[in-house]
Amino acid sequence: MNYPNKKSSFNKNYINYGNRGMTLESDINVSNKYYLENDIAVIYKKPTPIKVVKVDYNNRINTKIKEAYYEIPSTTDYNGIYKGKYIDFDAKETKSKTSFSLNNIHKHQLDHLIKIKNHGGISFLIIKFSTLDKTYLLETKWLEEFLNSSDRNSIPLNFIKEKGFEVDYNYYPRLEYIKILDKIIKGEQYE
Amino acid sequence: MNYPNKKSSFNKNYINYGNRGMTLESDINVSNKYYLENDIAVIYKKPTPIKVVKVDYNNRINTKIKEAYYEIPSTTDYNGIYKGKYIDFDAKETKSKTSFSLNNIHKHQLDHLIKIKNHGGISFLIIKFSTLDKTYLLETKWLEEFLNSSDRNSIPLNFIKEKGFEVDYNYYPRLEYIKILDKIIKGEQYE
Repeated sequence: MNYPNKKSSFNKNYINYGNRGMTLESDINVSNKYYLENDIAVIYKKPTPIKVVKVDYNNRINTKIKEAYYEIPSTTDYNGIYKGKYIDFDAKETKSKTSFSLNNIHKHQLDHLIKIKNHGGISFLIIKFSTLDKTYLLETKWLEEFLNSSDRNSIPLNFIKEKGFEVDYNYYPRLEYIKILDKIIKGEQYE
Repeated sequence: MNYPNKKSSFNKNYINYGNRGMTLESDINVSNKYYLENDIAVIYKKPTPIKVVKVDYNNRINTKIKEAYYEIPSTTDYNGIYKGKYIDFDAKETKSKTSFSLNNIHKHQLDHLIKIKNHGGISFLIIKFSTLDKTYLLETKWLEEFLNSSDRNSIPLNFIKEKGFEVDYNYYPRLEYIKILDKIIKGEQYE
């Protein structure tokens, strides 16, 4: 769960089109809202899976859940459709300035991304290096290549810079990752 | 939420390949598991959206949610990928023998199905007439046609029989709706 960051309080005197101060998740959510409202793409964040243990049925208007626990998601956080293509991704933030640790991804999330790629979908990670204020989109095929060719437990930033695409920030939509998807679709590797 | 049905206790002396006694949701879930394990399709049920109000952080091992409420989903329950196509649907049960009431679907769910269709995805409803022990798959284009041409608040079974496809039950996978998707894809209306 990404809880709202205390740093994200908005400073009225300073409009910053960069990505400082907002979580990657909230940036993606407002971007998806923009894409949806403008009929560009239909991409949603999946609800967080919660295991409900105790429920109070006496509350007639709205069933009250009295005991529940967060569960580990079996897939990624985001999926949807763009230009007829199935889109599936997860968003990760790291404070590191040099690499992205694979400890940030569950094994079954990696497996899921690979499955989607193999079934003809466009799957990827959006990785934000928050200290560097840089965000990249890395397709699953490069993740797979890295996993198959390296024993390292973290992907060097240089690898991500070389193989991935930097994602631009803007005013609205905040994070223009759809522009990157256009490049990927044009590349025709998914045709 | 579909809670387990009391009628679903398994009778060892009677193997029934029909669909009596299991909820449509559990039938779809076991079918999706089969499709996933056999690498045929990657289709998941989305978690039920829950609004968390109070959380107990003292429980160090696993954060305990102390107060939460079910929310109305903004999309459908199921989505995923099959043969490179984006798949999106909802599953509904009715006890009626003659029609499917549109009160069973939220307006924003209908809007979502139509959006997905317009973006080139395959979207539909799986409707189980539990009293008749019959299940149908109805594509969004027919839902739309019905909504645009009729003032009725329920879709007659005859319309569903004529425009939709009956979905067969089997031992494993329980509900072979992928066979119907093959017919739809062959029909090339999504090419």
